[in-house]
This record gives sequence, structure tokens and C-alpha cells, in this order.
Amino acid sequence: MKAKLQALKTRLLEIDDLNAAASLLQWDQATYMPPGGAVARGRQQSTLSRLAHEKLTDPAIGGLLDDLQAYEESLPYDSPEASLIRVTRRKYERAAQVPPSFMAELNEHAAVTYQAWTRARPADDFAAVQPLLEKTLVLSRRLAGFFPGYEHIADPLIDYADYGMTVSMLRALFADLREQLVPIVQAVTAQPPTDDSCLRQHFAAPQQIAFGLDVIQRLGYDLDRGRQDQSPHPFSTHFSLGDVRITTRVNEGYLGSALFGTMHEAGHAMYDQGICPDFEGTPLADGPSAGVHESQSRLWENLVGRSRGFWRFFYPRLQAAFPEQLSGVSEDAFYAAINQVERSLIRVAADELTYNLHVMIRFDLELALLEGNLAVRDLPGVWRERYLADLGIAPPNDRDGVMQDMHWYSWVIGGMFQGYTLGNVMGAQFFDAALRAHPEIPAEMEQGEFGTLHRWLKDHIYQHGAKYTATELVERITGQSLSVEPYIRYLKEKYSALYGVTSSPP
Amino acid sequence: MKAKLQALKTRLLEIDDLNAAASLLQWDQATYMPPGGAVARGRQQSTLSRLAHEKLTDPAIGGLLDDLQAYEESLPYDSPEASLIRVTRRKYERAAQVPPSFMAELNEHAAVTYQAWTRARPADDFAAVQPLLEKTLVLSRRLAGFFPGYEHIADPLIDYADYGMTVSMLRALFADLREQLVPIVQAVTAQPPTDDSCLRQHFAAPQQIAFGLDVIQRLGYDLDRGRQDQSPHPFSTHFSLGDVRITTRVNEGYLGSALFGTMHEAGHAMYDQGICPDFEGTPLADGPSAGVHESQSRLWENLVGRSRGFWRFFYPRLQAAFPEQLSGVSEDAFYAAINQVERSLIRVAADELTYNLHVMIRFDLELALLEGNLAVRDLPGVWRERYLADLGIAPPNDRDGVMQDMHWYSWVIGGMFQGYTLGNVMGAQFFDAALRAHPEIPAEMEQGEFGTLHRWLKDHIYQHGAKYTATELVERITGQSLSVEPYIRYLKEKYSALYGVTSSPP
Repeated sequence: MKAKLQALKTRLLEIDDLNAAASLLQWDQATYMPPGGAVARGRQQSTLSRLAHEKLTDPAIGGLLDDLQAYEESLPYDSPEASLIRVTRRKYERAAQVPPSFMAELNEHAAVTYQAWTRARPADDFAAVQPLLEKTLVLSRRLAGFFPGYEHIADPLIDYADYGMTVSMLRALFADLREQLVPIVQAVTAQPPTDDSCLRQHFAAPQQIAFGLDVIQRLGYDLDRGRQDQSPHPFSTHFSLGDVRITTRVNEGYLGSALFGTMHEAGHAMYDQGICPDFEGTPLADGPSAGVHESQSRLWENLVGRSRGFWRFFYPRLQAAFPEQLSGVSEDAFYAAINQVERSLIRVAADELTYNLHVMIRFDLELALLEGNLAVRDLPGVWRERYLADLGIAPPNDRDGVMQDMHWYSWVIGGMFQGYTLGNVMGAQFFDAALRAHPEIPAEMEQGEFGTLHRWLKDHIYQHGAKYTATELVERITGQSLSVEPYIRYLKEKYSALYGVTSSPP
Repeated sequence: MKAKLQALKTRLLEIDDLNAAASLLQWDQATYMPPGGAVARGRQQSTLSRLAHEKLTDPAIGGLLDDLQAYEESLPYDSPEASLIRVTRRKYERAAQVPPSFMAELNEHAAVTYQAWTRARPADDFAAVQPLLEKTLVLSRRLAGFFPGYEHIADPLIDYADYGMTVSMLRALFADLREQLVPIVQAVTAQPPTDDSCLRQHFAAPQQIAFGLDVIQRLGYDLDRGRQDQSPHPFSTHFSLGDVRITTRVNEGYLGSALFGTMHEAGHAMYDQGICPDFEGTPLADGPSAGVHESQSRLWENLVGRSRGFWRFFYPRLQAAFPEQLSGVSEDAFYAAINQVERSLIRVAADELTYNLHVMIRFDLELALLEGNLAVRDLPGVWRERYLADLGIAPPNDRDGVMQDMHWYSWVIGGMFQGYTLGNVMGAQFFDAALRAHPEIPAEMEQGEFGTLHRWLKDHIYQHGAKYTATELVERITGQSLSVEPYIRYLKEKYSALYGVTSSPP
């Protein structure tokens, strides 16, 4: 059995090497590649991804997994070996269930659609992508069809990003969240708007970068096993557990962009840096789901990075870095500015409180499209209606409406958005558990110390990689099932202190 | 036949994508990779190279080449299709002749030896690498043995880098060169040494980089299809014909390092940028040999970059970039400094005139080792003797002696060095042909214009990629066979003007 397991690991390592190289091709494209490299680069990425997929779906892997099944069952569920076999089987079966010819068609269509979107969005030309999106919907439904036995057609698509979650679970969770969130949003947005002009001055890029690097190193991001570069869209990526990188976008006219973007990506990166090194090169060397991964970016960005205690330590340092801009701005005013709430159009720029409303709109529209209850041609109109109903504001164009997110234009429709809100909910639930275990954490944060929190997260979440599913992880850590209660409690406390309101019935 | 050719191209493109990704892994390792990425990175590079090699030696490629042979013979020799088939067959046969198990053993041994060398060299500990080098010699002889029918055991190894060259050709060429070179070296080094202290001041890195970038863009390096980064060892690499990069090492205490290193690597890069775009993704998208490629780095670095006319234009600019350091240094003094000749120990730091003596020492020792006329344990001593005899100076240690170059410690012994001197010889021969075709080139260089020269090189050399062998290229361009005459003529003219001497019998 040891030999079979070793044979499996050898194959997985080769697949991981191909995927790592594909990730580096992508990182380089976003950071340093000269324009002349673009055409070949797309082809190179697609070749490497295809080779990795071919190797993952090699029937020899299925054979090894079959041979190892009895061995797996003889081991404790959460032993590294049983977990490796189990998680590999899940990935193998998902990949092997889809015919390569279909996958090639989908990937090619996605590449064409993405290219069309990059042109159509600035031109505000939804008509140019509508027929492509209609085909995307057809292909999304066909992809789901390769996984028979689902309850809702979106379930198999959700499984890709958030394994184990289903439409029925998410609808219940989101309804619960929405019911409690909307009154808070309404109460807060009924107040006079907060002044965030202190963030909208000129802040030189090198100082922004230097400050952000200082912050994330104090949070626990290890630069011996990572680095930061600039790119138009910030992201985190890794080429091995010893090389986990982030990118940042700097806006010299708005301090919030790089500052919170850097903490967000560092949250993702600290997760990967914390995974047990023995998992290197296997499917265990990742988080279990988009939602769990996002829980860490949102935790560090918001629960830590937009908290009062955090800025008690860092605000004098920020003022020292930008004395001209901030010496006349009080800590209170700064704290209010970074927590400004407003009815806005753009998800990625939305504040902590309204963010989930943006996500839920997309989730509902995905389901309606997949169910056949919404036609692609009606999408822009319905998008505007929903924004008006939920956020009290409607986009004046499709560029800042239905075309703002790349997601539907870069792969499938379905399963693309729920992870963001799951991340907020789980992040609060995990943070609540950490605070119960270590009530000293808030006082430490005021001293610029994050070691206790980081260690707790590493011990309870990061090190396990993909060993536990999202649901298992929540239950192991909190002793409860997934719940919006800690998140709502956190929001109520924070915003009642900030705006002097608590939720009131609409 | 069109379908067979397309099938071949599709396979070659996949191999090229793997090689491009492996090159990017290497570039990133040398430029930006954090230390934590090192272990996985070595494995990733080796996986991708192995997969590329497996795909190149796939018998299906042999089958396609067989099927295409009659078609190839029906086409003109230098048609793109016939050239593609011919050059691919050469690569395929060379790769397929070596058993994969041997190649794996060699590559693994090379990796171990290289690691040992990186530790042994700073420790000046030849004993630590001697047994490894002995095994390298055994493996080098075995590698040659897979190519029966050679005249000299080094010939198959030379073929890897300089296809078509043989020991007997090179011995004759090098003897000819040596006979004419040594008197010039003796005459020049008998003069009082040139003062190069003007180059040995503090020169801030950003200004060095900016000046170098300006120079190479004027030479014709295209930054839309390339970029420059810093690395400990400068190199040029490409990931496609639209993405050809260079790296530079900056020494703030010595101006010559980045300045000439940048021009050298830009010479390599302009070659690759000039290859016919239709060759993208095939074995034609490369120079025909190490020597021909080196001819272009040496041409731009030395024949152009160390010439009088070049500095007539650039020296005022260099003075403006470094007024404190250079305003009191005349153009004559600067020109003399960058052309200082001295008996030195280190090949990569050697001047234009003595450089080939360093190369020929290594070439002769490689042959003696392979022939069995020299034992590895005697190598350090023989190295010292040869340096004393040829350059009148012997290294005080092995660090700056037999361990200075990575070549023997990173792959095989044999075929590793001849390309450098071939590059000097061919570079002068090509430059001479360009000047005969365009006598206006020197006057243009004095105006900072390099378009005529660059276009001529592109038309006659770069665009052809690997279509012609080195020998064919020399004959097509110059109407003559490979000859040291233009090179010796160039050296005599240059150094007699500089030192007021011509070669005299020893």
C-alpha cells in the first residue's frame, strides 16, 4: 500500500508542478510581462492547464484510488493519508466526469468571452457579449448535467468552488442574513453620510507600498516565503507553500484601495503559508473552499483591519508616513472614514455592510438564469431593478451594472459568487471562536501584536489545508453549524457604535 | 502532407509551451523568487524539462518526420517547411538517441554537482567536487558514446551547442587564432598598463540602469517585446518571440559591469527579437548554435560598444548622467579605460583581447580530460600551469582557478566553451561583411544611429533563426568559410591605435 500511495503522490506532484508553472505564467502576465508576450502567453497557460487536467484524469489515478480504498478505510478519517486519498478522489471524480472535449469547448468559449468582455465593458456594449453569455448559460447547464442526481441545477457548479454547499442551504442562510442585514443598512444609510475626504488626497505610491508591507509583516505574512508586486487587479497566488505571493493595486488618489487590498490578499496568503508543509504538492495544499479561503481575507481586512483597536496602534504610524495629509485628521475621523457606508454600485468597492447585498443579487440572478426563469437579454434590466430595490440606486449603464464583474464572462454562470458572503459569515464565526478562546486578542491588537490570533488561526484552520470540508471545519472549531449570528452581532455592535443606531424594523 | 505537417507543428508547439514555462520558472528564480521557493522550484523545472523531453522523443514525432521526408525533399532546402522538418529531425534524433534513464541520471548528477559547486567554490574546496567531477567525466564519455561514428569523443558534445563543428576544425581554427593573437597580447601587455580608475568610482544603480536602457533601445532592443531586470548572473531568455528579456548585474563600484553586460545580453535578445515570427513555437525559433548567438552579443558589446565612434555619441550623455564622476575625464581617457588589457584570472571579467586565451585553456583541458590524457585530480595543477604559460599569471586558489566557471559543474565536460571564441571570430566576420555592404555604418554610429547595422543583421542573420547552420550562415553572408582573418585585422587596428603597437614576433 505504501508503494501505491507513493505512486499516487508522484503523479500528484507532477500535476502540481504543471499547475504551479501555469500559475507563474499568470502571475507574470499580471505583473511584468511586456505587451508582446500576450498572444503566446494565453496559449502557454492553456497548454499547461490542459496537460495538468489530462494527467489528473488519467485512469491510472482512478486505479490507484480504487486500490487504496480499503487502506483508506482502515485509517482514521483525518489522518494525512486517508485525507489525501479522500480529497484526491473527490478531485479526480469531478474532473473525470466531464468529457475532455466538452472541457476544451468550455475553456475555449470562456477565453473568447473574456476577451470580448474586456472590450465590451469599457464600451458599455452589453449587446456585444449577450450572444456569448447565452452560449455560456447553455454550456453551464450542460456542465451541471454531467453530475446527475443534484437537487438544484446550480449545485454541481457551486461544488466546484464551495464543495458541499447547496442552493437550498445557501438560500436559507442568505435569507436569514438578509432579513437581519437590511434593517441595519437602512438605519445606517438613513444617517448623514460619513466624510471620507481624508482618504481622497494624494498619497505617493512608494509610501503606500512601504506602509502596507509593514502592516502585513506585523500581521504575520512571511516575506521569506512570499513577496508583493503591483498589478491592475490584486490577487494572491502560490507556486509552492514556500512561495506565496500577493499583488496590490495602488491608487494615489485614494488611500483605501492599496491599504485594505493588501491586507485582504495577505489574509489569503497567510492561509497558504500556514498549510502543513507535508501537504506540499498534493490536493491537500489548499483551503477546502472559496468561502473558507475568503473568510481569512475578509477577517484580516475587515474584522482586524477596519477595527478600532487595530488603528489605535497603526494610525500614529500612518500619520507619520503621511504627515501632510493626515496630521490634521483625528483617529476618530479616520476610523469613521474607513468605515463609511453608502449605497453604491460596485461590489469590489462596496463597504463591509452593504457588500453582501451586492453578492446576493448576483447569486439570485445566477439561479434564475440557470433555472430558465430569466433570459440573458433581460439581465441588464433585472440587474437595475434589483439594485434599485435592494440598494436604492440603479446603475446608469451596463459597464457599472451587469458587466462590472469578470466572473460570468470568464468561466460559467453558477457558483461564482456565494463564496464571498460565505467568507464574511464564516470569518465572523471563526473570529468569534478565537476571541472566546483568547480574550486577550483585542488588547494585543491595540499593541500591534497579532501572534495569538495568527497562531490560533493557523492551528485551527490553515495547517489543515483541504483536510476538512468547510462544514466540518466550522463544526470542529465552533461546535456549531454555519450561522449568521456572530456576523450579525459583530455588525450590530460595530455600526451602532459608529452611527449610534441599532437595527430598527423598516 | 499539410495535415502531417500541421500535426508535427501542434506537437512542437506543446513542447515549446513546456520549455517556455520552464524558462519562466528559471527567470523568476533568478530575479524575484523568495528564498522559500527554492526547493519546489528545482523540482518544477526538472518536471517541465522532463515532460518536454518525453514529448520530443515521442515515437509519433519520428513517424511524422518519416512520413514527411519525401515532401521535405520536394521542397527547396531553405523553404520554411523543409527547414522546419530538417531542424526538427536533427533535434529529435539527438534526443531520441539517448535513453531516458541515462538522461535522468545525468540531469540528477548535474543538479547535485551544481549544488556542491555553489558551496565548494566560496570555500575554495576543490576536493569536495573532485569525485563528482570524476563521475561527470564518466557520464560525459558515456553521453558521447550514444553517438557512434565520431572522429573525436568531444565531437558529439560539441554538436549539442555548436552543431556541425568538430574538434579537428576547431583545433585548426584556434591554432591559427592563437598564433596571431599571442604576439598582439604580448606587445600590448609589454606597455605600461592603462588607467581605468575612472570606471572604479561610485555609480548609483538607478542611473546605471537608466543609461543602459537608453543605450540598448537606441541599438534596437524593443521594450514592447522585452524587459530588463536585475539578477546576480546576467542572462538573456525568451518565453516567446514577443517576450525576450534580459537581466543585468549592477556593481555600484565599477561602471563596466552593467554597461557592457547590458549591451551583451541585449545583443542576444535582439537576435531572438529579430527571428521570423512565423517560426514561433518551433525549433527554428532560435539561433543555429551557441557560437552564432554569441557572435551577436560580442558584436554589440565589443565591436560596437567598445568602439571609438560609439562613444563619440554616448560619452557626453554618460558624462551628463554622472557629472561628478566623469566631467573631469576626457573621452580619450574613458575610451582607453574601457579597453584596458591585462593579464587576468577570470574569464568573464577578461578584456576583449585576452578573453580567447581563457577560452582556449578550457577547450584544451576539456579535450585532454575526455581523451583520458588528464585526470580530474590533476586538473587544478594543470590549470595553474596553463595560466602561467598563456597569461603569465597563476591563480592563488581554485576558487578563481578551476572552479570559476559553472559550466563543468552544471552539465557535462566537453563542448561547453568553444562557442565563446567562435562568437568572437564570427562576430568580426559578420561585422566586416556589414561594413563592406554599408560603409556608412561607422558614421551612423557616431550619430547614435544603429538602424542600418541592425537591419542588415536582422536581414542576414536574425530572421533566419535556426534555418541555416553556423557554417552555412558564414558562407552565405561572407562568401567565405569561417576565418580568423577579419577578427585579427580588427584587433590589430584597434590595439595599434590604442597602444601604438602592432603585433611583433614573440
